[in-house]
Parts: sequence; structure tokens; C-alpha cells
Amino acid sequence: MIKVGIVGGSGYTGGELLRLLSVHPQSEAVCITSRRLEGTPVEEVHPHLRGITSLSFESPSAKEIAERCDVVFTAVPHGTAMDWVPGLLEGGAKVIDLSADYRLPLSVFEETYKIKHKAFIEAAFGMPELHPEVKDADLVANPGCYPTGASLAVAPLAKAGLVDRVVFDSKSGISGAGNAPSQTSHYPNMAENVQGYRLTTHRHVPEIKQELWRLSPGIKVSFTPQVVPSIRGILTTAHVLVKEECVKNIPDASEIDKLYREFYKNAPFVRMVKGMPSLGAVRGSNFCDINFEIDGSGDRIVVLSAIDNLVKGASGQAIQNMNLMMGLDETTGLWFPGVAP
Amino acid sequence: MIKVGIVGGSGYTGGELLRLLSVHPQSEAVCITSRRLEGTPVEEVHPHLRGITSLSFESPSAKEIAERCDVVFTAVPHGTAMDWVPGLLEGGAKVIDLSADYRLPLSVFEETYKIKHKAFIEAAFGMPELHPEVKDADLVANPGCYPTGASLAVAPLAKAGLVDRVVFDSKSGISGAGNAPSQTSHYPNMAENVQGYRLTTHRHVPEIKQELWRLSPGIKVSFTPQVVPSIRGILTTAHVLVKEECVKNIPDASEIDKLYREFYKNAPFVRMVKGMPSLGAVRGSNFCDINFEIDGSGDRIVVLSAIDNLVKGASGQAIQNMNLMMGLDETTGLWFPGVAP
Amino acid sequence: MIKVGIVGGSGYTGGELLRLLSVHPQSEAVCITSRRLEGTPVEEVHPHLRGITSLSFESPSAKEIAERCDVVFTAVPHGTAMDWVPGLLEGGAKVIDLSADYRLPLSVFEETYKIKHKAFIEAAFGMPELHPEVKDADLVANPGCYPTGASLAVAPLAKAGLVDRVVFDSKSGISGAGNAPSQTSHYPNMAENVQGYRLTTHRHVPEIKQELWRLSPGIKVSFTPQVVPSIRGILTTAHVLVKEECVKNIPDASEIDKLYREFYKNAPFVRMVKGMPSLGAVRGSNFCDINFEIDGSGDRIVVLSAIDNLVKGASGQAIQNMNLMMGLDETTGLWFPGVAP
Amino acid sequence: MIKVGIVGGSGYTGGELLRLLSVHPQSEAVCITSRRLEGTPVEEVHPHLRGITSLSFESPSAKEIAERCDVVFTAVPHGTAMDWVPGLLEGGAKVIDLSADYRLPLSVFEETYKIKHKAFIEAAFGMPELHPEVKDADLVANPGCYPTGASLAVAPLAKAGLVDRVVFDSKSGISGAGNAPSQTSHYPNMAENVQGYRLTTHRHVPEIKQELWRLSPGIKVSFTPQVVPSIRGILTTAHVLVKEECVKNIPDASEIDKLYREFYKNAPFVRMVKGMPSLGAVRGSNFCDINFEIDGSGDRIVVLSAIDNLVKGASGQAIQNMNLMMGLDETTGLWFPGVAP
Repeated sequence: MIKVGIVGGSGYTGGELLRLLSVHPQSEAVCITSRRLEGTPVEEVHPHLRGITSLSFESPSAKEIAERCDVVFTAVPHGTAMDWVPGLLEGGAKVIDLSADYRLPLSVFEETYKIKHKAFIEAAFGMPELHPEVKDADLVANPGCYPTGASLAVAPLAKAGLVDRVVFDSKSGISGAGNAPSQTSHYPNMAENVQGYRLTTHRHVPEIKQELWRLSPGIKVSFTPQVVPSIRGILTTAHVLVKEECVKNIPDASEIDKLYREFYKNAPFVRMVKGMPSLGAVRGSNFCDINFEIDGSGDRIVVLSAIDNLVKGASGQAIQNMNLMMGLDETTGLWFPGVAP
Repeated sequence: MIKVGIVGGSGYTGGELLRLLSVHPQSEAVCITSRRLEGTPVEEVHPHLRGITSLSFESPSAKEIAERCDVVFTAVPHGTAMDWVPGLLEGGAKVIDLSADYRLPLSVFEETYKIKHKAFIEAAFGMPELHPEVKDADLVANPGCYPTGASLAVAPLAKAGLVDRVVFDSKSGISGAGNAPSQTSHYPNMAENVQGYRLTTHRHVPEIKQELWRLSPGIKVSFTPQVVPSIRGILTTAHVLVKEECVKNIPDASEIDKLYREFYKNAPFVRMVKGMPSLGAVRGSNFCDINFEIDGSGDRIVVLSAIDNLVKGASGQAIQNMNLMMGLDETTGLWFPGVAP
Repeated sequence: MIKVGIVGGSGYTGGELLRLLSVHPQSEAVCITSRRLEGTPVEEVHPHLRGITSLSFESPSAKEIAERCDVVFTAVPHGTAMDWVPGLLEGGAKVIDLSADYRLPLSVFEETYKIKHKAFIEAAFGMPELHPEVKDADLVANPGCYPTGASLAVAPLAKAGLVDRVVFDSKSGISGAGNAPSQTSHYPNMAENVQGYRLTTHRHVPEIKQELWRLSPGIKVSFTPQVVPSIRGILTTAHVLVKEECVKNIPDASEIDKLYREFYKNAPFVRMVKGMPSLGAVRGSNFCDINFEIDGSGDRIVVLSAIDNLVKGASGQAIQNMNLMMGLDETTGLWFPGVAP
Repeated sequence: MIKVGIVGGSGYTGGELLRLLSVHPQSEAVCITSRRLEGTPVEEVHPHLRGITSLSFESPSAKEIAERCDVVFTAVPHGTAMDWVPGLLEGGAKVIDLSADYRLPLSVFEETYKIKHKAFIEAAFGMPELHPEVKDADLVANPGCYPTGASLAVAPLAKAGLVDRVVFDSKSGISGAGNAPSQTSHYPNMAENVQGYRLTTHRHVPEIKQELWRLSPGIKVSFTPQVVPSIRGILTTAHVLVKEECVKNIPDASEIDKLYREFYKNAPFVRMVKGMPSLGAVRGSNFCDINFEIDGSGDRIVVLSAIDNLVKGASGQAIQNMNLMMGLDETTGLWFPGVAP
């Protein structure tokens, strides 16, 4: 049994890690931390876990956590994870960091997040479909929710050398903004609405670029996020503008479908679907559903990908990474369908 | 491995049975039927099951199903289940019927559903918290969704002899009405709305009465359902009017809480909760969350119960029944938390 | 042109008053106050009013407001309205108070709201359907949202002497809780959910009792509110328990319908409807839609009423009161349909 | 008083025309047709209009309608409007057609809608902000909902010669699909979801191109629609890719803002807003709210526009056209704010 710790367990990703670990057959949450809530039973903060977990929030040191745990998830804000990660690694734990602290090269991180990194370490980028090196890593940087849906949607086309530019228009459920009430998440503002934000300046852009440039350097990437009236889920609409030299002899739909299936043949959580990818079909699950349509003009391919932002976009992918790091099959404890309808 | 069949698998309860069976460690769906969809892969109808099941819909006889399966769930409309159940039982399968055909005494059934029963058989009423005899039954009548939430909410008070009358005011998610589009389920009619229906004449009333009268004959039962803008879930508000002779010395909150906990001490899926029971905390799970408040007047106790109508209110409870009928622990394959937020 | 002031205009009822006044042909908002927002253009706080109003928030004294205005709406929290009302009246303005400060007899108010009243004055209760005296009043206490829907639903039955007890089960949109974000109004908590609160202790109960007792002293009143995933609207389900002596010869549906139509023959905003009253049909309008069903047992009548909590439940009714106080037809500026779908 | 007829009044746009006409001070609905519903009171089909209209559906000939009405709105499906329009015009009525039958040049129409036109006539394109000739027309083709939001969002940039290509990603409320239930509009499929459809082949594309090419011939136009969990509203996200030669010296935000304000200085319903355009701020109103953000790269401008699809996107704009055709101020009867929250 793998002993698991969660640093920062009071938020949605912490709760989701506990939900997923509770059905994982080869691991067990043994420690969940929250300074603010030390001593409080976890089930008071996450009432869906009543009867499922008997843990209470603790506030131990990194050293102590590393002693008690084989793997630790850090689910704290960016800028805070870096206070924990080095100590956890030194203590011998493997670490999967759900914050942004280890996702980007040092200089890109500092420029993007406008803070000085206190403890930079190279990490594997935790998107197993694109990063097989995860299995050998001690530190994995779990990707952002938007970059997960965006990169998986376009990676095969990028690798095929077809892409000049991608305009990503992403629609996210509001749980991505966390469990603290705000004007954005206030029901009268969110229901029956669509709210744009950071239309051109979202901090996930460098992650997306990083992933696509590994496959096809120099692709132009634009990204515009919006929140929609949904608790969970990200539907990414990738408007892929095809390289001018490819427009004339663009592959047809069946060839592009083949290209995707080949690219993802070892990726059990990516499903090429018939019909439209739908938040409902992945809700609560670790799947990423993808489909596409080629514009009659031949110069645009519209790709849709659907993920659950809290699962494949955060805690589920984190456990997928844990599985690989610990030598388990990557689907262990994650091979269940979404909750539909 | 228990071999499981599902008769009528194209609806929401069929899809939910497959979802739940896919994570059940000791059973396996081997046959799922639909006359209309014979030959169609299940995943085309239930896209959340893509990659999870490779079954296609079949259209075999009851005899053939019984040969291939140890347990069969009948998830067809009332009036149709009775065409299947006798043959399945004769073939040696255990049967859990999710329709209304075997929930009520013959005469009550015929009066309530205005049809003649073709093949009445005594069945165990499949609410294990109130019916331990389920474990010895070959035929179990799985309760209606409303009766599940309603009966569990009030049973302990009924048994304690406190109840004169209950006015149930239930709020259901719209998935209870099935997957066929209608004016009621049309998003512009359902969103931002509450829709009453059958305010005084819902066919689940006899089931509720039956359950409460076993504990306290003659309790007056009123029931009014409404659909609310939610896909899943039933929140039952039970306005329990206390017998006049009990009003003066009504037990206090801690005594009533004790009474509930004692009543449900062997019922792992019933959770007495702090705070308000919430559809979100049980979504996708088999739990029934309950809490109550005593009116200052002493003559009313308001009990709230929350269930997921498709799980504890249908397919989850059906699997709980299967577990008991097959000698397994009742929580097998069902011991997972809801999907929150 | 009637000159109108609004004390406390930054909340939902303030915004709604401005929306309604903007289409009122015989009045004009000339002053809207907010200490916190002094100097801020109203349209920055209420962006739907961009281009419609050029007012900015001010912070004048009661005296100054009274000088500039014929009618003043006080849309501040209970306990604060009493700081404004006497000064406004002394200055010669007519006042419609949307808070709770003048709705109840002094002692009932102080017991219910647990505060000492600083400046009690007798006011007319501003539900014109039940209080024709509104037209002669200088101070009108605008009713609470729940009491409006509840009283209108049951008044005719109360007057007819049929009612022993009413169990009100009310479902409200979340805008009733105001524009400040909270855990309750946080989209992931409110969507796909129903949230009970103050199940037996809501402060609107004394208002409901007051109204029904005027028509039939001693009726037992129970009230349980819940919020549903809707921005606006209150659907009140009134479970009317019929007096034992009336059960045997309860009027039939057409007689009760006649009774309602007679009772409301001079009430243009109350509509007896076919089918189910629906939040969608009254959204944005001042109507109260009502229908009912008689339980086969004869001892219960289920009445549904639907209102928009911000219009008939607050600002619309306030303007209806203003119309009457100023000698206008009560429908002036309010005779428009809801926004459906 | 202008006498108004509505051909095809049972759908959402028919209901919305009646809602808007009911508050229009200089016109009056006198005839509303539906073959299927002949004789049925309008308020039974549109329950929000109870008490507001006493009309019943009729089924007169075009000639008779033209005799009774000054202006006729045709709110029937494309392909059917052409059966009515010539007769109505011949009878002397002015006509505003809400279908697609007269929006495009003949050949483009036939190619797009795959039907032969039976009675083509030149019409003014009814978007008054771009087509002042509306005021002199007898036949106005009311634009599609998507083209309205899309064209208004980008027209000023197109006219300024900045635009190489626009990728429109539009999010629509589901009322745009009409009042007939479908799998798409089924609440369990629509809630908590985003549904793409016709990702590259929507029939509104030629209208958008037509409008933008009038201002800047040859702009490349891509359009992808999606439905979101909202009853009303269209949020259009226009990803404007700037001409290569303009990227270097792209105007700054204040210059572009000025450009928009200048372009729309005589367009009362277009509001340049601070912050994000929001469906909530235009709900129920005829406004189109617009704002934009320039990508740091200088080669993309993201413009958001928000309209109510049933008002500015259909019936409201139709009445705006009627006002102009009849010599009224275009805001007559339409100068009211949206219903927020």
C-alpha cells in the first residue's frame, strides 16, 4: 500500500484527491494538511467524504510528512509549493506538485508569475501522454487545467507539421476558480451567463506553448478563456489554422482521425469520439474526449476536447502520474466512467 | 465473478447500472438488452462508457438471459417488467426489478397503475435498511426514487410512534423523468424554474404509505413532487406533524438524533449529517444524507433527506440489493463518495 | 412627474427600482444614495442600466432628500431604515420602506429581529391586494418576499374559513440573499442543488401569520424556505390542511376557483392560471400566478403561487404602492409581461 | 396607432414580438396567426402574456392580414416566409421578415439553404446600425441572431481596414433553437455542458461575410457556434487577426475605443462598456454591449459582444426596424434596460 500525503487539502483539488484515493486499490491517504484547519475532521470541510475518511487536517513539517508518506501531492497555491517541495524530496518522498511552481523553465516562470523562485528544481511535466519520462521522475509538475485540454487537442496536428497558428477558445466550469466565493462565482452572475476574463493574458499560455513547441517549434498560440455555467469541465475549442503550404493537400478527415489514433495509441485516457465531445461524458472521470471537423476552406481544423478540470485537469492526472512514478499501470484506480447524465 | 444481465439498458437507469457495475469488483455485465437498439454498441448510446464497455445491445429471450446470467436487473417500464420476470426466475436467475410491477400488493398495484397484472409474484421490497429479508429473496422489487428518500427520512420517527401526519414536499432532479425530451425537460422551461406536477396524485404514494405503515399503521401521508433545475438528486422535505399527545413532551434534538443513529446503526449508506443535507454531497453516490430540525412549536419536525435519484433512488440501491442477495457485503462496489463539487 | 429618491441603491432591490422607474411614465428617479459609493456612476454598479440612467450615487441627508423628492424608497437593511424614515416623513416625503422595520407591531418586530426599535411609527402594510388603506398612507411597509407569495396563495381560503393549518414550503431564487457572494450563493454550491435554511425559524413567519390572522385568527402557520438554482423567483407550495369540520363538504375545484377569482377581482396583478404557476411566466414582472389542487382525501388543498421575488416580492410591489399613494392607477408603469422563456 | 400583424406567432420570436409590442406606445398587435393553433387564446401558448393580450390565433390569408395591418412580421421558418411576403406587400403592408428568406442574394440563399426561392425580392438588411436604408424600405430582412452579434462586434475594425481574418467563436443560449424539445435542449444534456454544433458549416456565415465585406472586401471569416447553459443570450468572441502590415503600428486601446464610439455614435443600442460584456446585462433588452482587448503580440484583437438573441438578435431588432420604417424614433418602445440579475 502506497502511503500518500496531501499538502493543502482544504480546496477542491485536495477534496478531489481524497475522493479518487478512496477508490484507489493500492494507495491510501495517511496525512492531509491545512494550517488553518488543523484538528478539523476532513469530512466537515468535504461533506461528500463523510463516512469515507476519518482523517483530520494536520499541520506537520515537510520532514515529518516525508517520513510518513511515499508520495506527496502539494495542492497549495503557486509560490507556496516551493516552500514544501525541496523538503519533501530531501525527506525521500516522491512529489507531485499541482501548483505552477515547477511547470516552466525558471525564467519563464518568474516572468509569468511575477515572483522570484526560491527553490527551483527540474521536474517532469506531468502529462503522461506527452511525457513518458514521468515514470522515472521524483518530482512531477502537474499541468494546468487549460494546458491539459489544449495540448491534448492539438498535439497530433502539431507533430504532423500542419499547424501555423492555434486560436484556443476555452470554456471552463467555475470550480477552476476554487472554493472561495467571489463576484464571478456568485450564482446570479454566473448562471445564464458566459464570463470572459484575461482574454489575452492568461498565465497558462506559456505552458501550452511549451508543450506545442516541443512538437513543432514556433507555432503561434493565442488563448482566450471564459467561464460558463457549469461546476466542472473544460471544453476547449481549438481553431487550428493550417500552414499555408499544407492547405492545398490537407489530409482528409479519416486520415486525420488515423493520425490522432496513432498518436494516442498508448494513451488509455484519450478517447477519439464520434459526435461532439461533451462535458457530461467526462464529468468525474479522467478521460479526455476529442473530435474535430475540417473547415471546407481547408485552412482551419476545429478540434474540440472535453475534460473534467478537477480530474484530468488536476487531481486525476496527478494520480495517473503517481501510478507511473510508482510502477503501477497508469489506469490503476482511475478506470471508471464519468457520471452521466 | 457474478454474471449480470440488464433487461432494458438504453435509459438512464440502465446506463447507471453499467457505470456502477464497471467498478464492482465481483460482478460483470455480460448482457444488456434493447429491442430497438439491437446490435448497437452500448457506448454509442451511453458515451460516458466509451472504452469502459465493449458490449452491444442484444435482444435475447428471458430463457437465454437466465442461462447466461446469475442476476438480472429489469430496467423496463412498469407493465413491461412483468413480461420478463417470471421467465427469468424460472430460468434460475435472481431478479431485481427496477419497475413498479412488484413493489405493491396486487390490488394496490392494479388500482394505482390502472393496468391488470399478468404475472404477480411476491417480492421482497428492496430497501435494505428497512427490509433485511432482501438477502434471502430471489425477486426483489427495487423501490421508487421518491419512496426511498421519503421512507428513510421518516422511518425512525414513525417507529418511535411520534408521527400523526407527514406532508412530504419533494424536489427532484429532472433525470427522474428519463432521457426522452419533453416540454418539462426542455431547458428553457426547466432552467431557472421549479415545476410542480401531480401535486396530490403521484403514484409513489402507496409505496411510501406501505413503508411507513409497517412501522406505524395509519400515519396520514401527503406527498407533493416538484422538479428543480438539477440533473440528479432528490431533496425530500418531510414536514412531520407530531401526534397531539406527544407535542408536550417531544424528545429534544439530541434524543431524536440518537433515535436516528440507533435506527440506522447497521445501515452504512445512511448518514446523519451536521448542517443541511445537500444534493451535491451525494451526487453519484449511494448515500442518503439526513438531518432534521424541531419546530419551536413542538408540533412539527422538519426532516431533510438527500439522495441521488439514479443511485440510491434506483441503480445503486439495486446493486446494494444484488450484493445482499449474492451473499456479499452490501457496500461491495458501492463504497465511494459522491462527486463534489 | 413624481420625483423619486432611493435610499440605499447599490443592492438588487435598488437596481430593480431603477429598472422599473426607467419605464414608469409618471415618475423619475432623481436621487439614489450610497455612502460607500458616493460619486460613483450608478451604471458602474448596475451595468444593465448603462445608457439608461446618468445618476451617480450621492450621500445627502434625509432632510435634503425629502426636499428634492416626493416619494422615497428606503432599500437599506432592517435596523438602518429606522434611521431614515422619520426624517424623510418630517421633510414631507412619502416613504415606502423595503426593510422589515415597519412591517410588524413594535413588540413583534423587536422580538423577531432582536433589536430595539429607535423610531417606531404605524405604517400601512404594502400588499395592496389585502390592504386598500395603502392609498391613504404616508408610510408604507413593503412586505417581505416570502410573505407576499405565501399570503396571496392562501388568503381566499383563509377568508372562507376553511383553513386549520398551512405548511408553507417555499422555493426561492438566490437573488433574495442579495448581491454579496457567500458560500450559499457560490455557483458550485448552488447549481444542481436545493439548499434548506432556517427550516423552522425564518423571520418572515410573523408577517405571514399577521396577514392570515387578519382573515382567520388562529390559523396554524408553518414555514420552511429553501433556495433553488434560479436567480429570481419564489414558488410557494402551500399545503393547506382543511379544518376537520370542512373536510366532508369541501367545495369542489370550480367553487374554489370562483372563490379566488371573486377575492381577487380587483387585483390586476393576481392571475388565476390554468396549469402550473411557473417562475418563468412571471420573471421580471409584477404578477403573482396562482393555481391549486384538492387532495382526493379532501383534507388538503395544495396551492402554488409564483412571483418574481425582486418585483412583486420587492421593488415592483413598492412601485405599485407608490402608484396608489400618489393617486395613480396601481398598474401604471407596471403593466408589462414577464420575460419568457 | 400602428396596426401590427404577426404571421407565425406560436414560437419564441412570436411570443417575444408580443411581449415587446405590449409596451410599445405607438403600435398594437391586432392579428397573430398560427394554422395549427387557430382559435386558441394566445395566452395559453404564451402564459407570461396572460392578462396582457386577449388575442387568439387566427388563420387568415395574406390579403386579409394586409388589409387589417400596417406592418406585418413574418416569424415562420425559412422557405415558408416566401409564401407570405409577396402577398403581404401587394396588399400594402410593410413587412419585416424574421426568416432567412430575404437576407442574402438569390444565388447565395439557394446555395446556403439548399432550396429554390419561389418569390425573391430585394430587401433592406435590417441591421439599422449598418443599414440606414431600412427607413425607406417596404421589406426588411431581419438578420440572424449570430450575424447581429458578430457583425456589430467587428464592423468598426473592418471599416478601419485592420482585419485580415476573424475567427468567431459564439456561445448561444438554447432558446435560439426554438421551443420544440430535442436531445440538445433536454435539460440533462444542456445543463453543466457546452455543446458544439455545425463547427464549420453554420448557415449564418454568408450573412456575416456579406456584412463585413461591405466594409472591407475579402476578410476571411470563420465561425463556430456552441450552445451554453443559458436560456437567452449570445456572447460572441471575435478573435480578430490583424493584417500583417498593421501589426507593427496597431492603434492602442484608447484609439480603438474611439474608433468604435465614432462608428456607433448614432447607434443608441450599441454600448461600449467597461469590463466584460455580459449576457446578464442585456437580458430582455435590445442592447448590444461590446468591449475588446488587444493581444500583447499586436496581431490579435479579442472583441466580445453580448446580445439577447430573442431581442437584439430577433424580435427587438425587428421592432427597431419597424420604428424606422414607420418614421418613429428607433428607440420607441425599446428604451428599457435588461432584467438583471
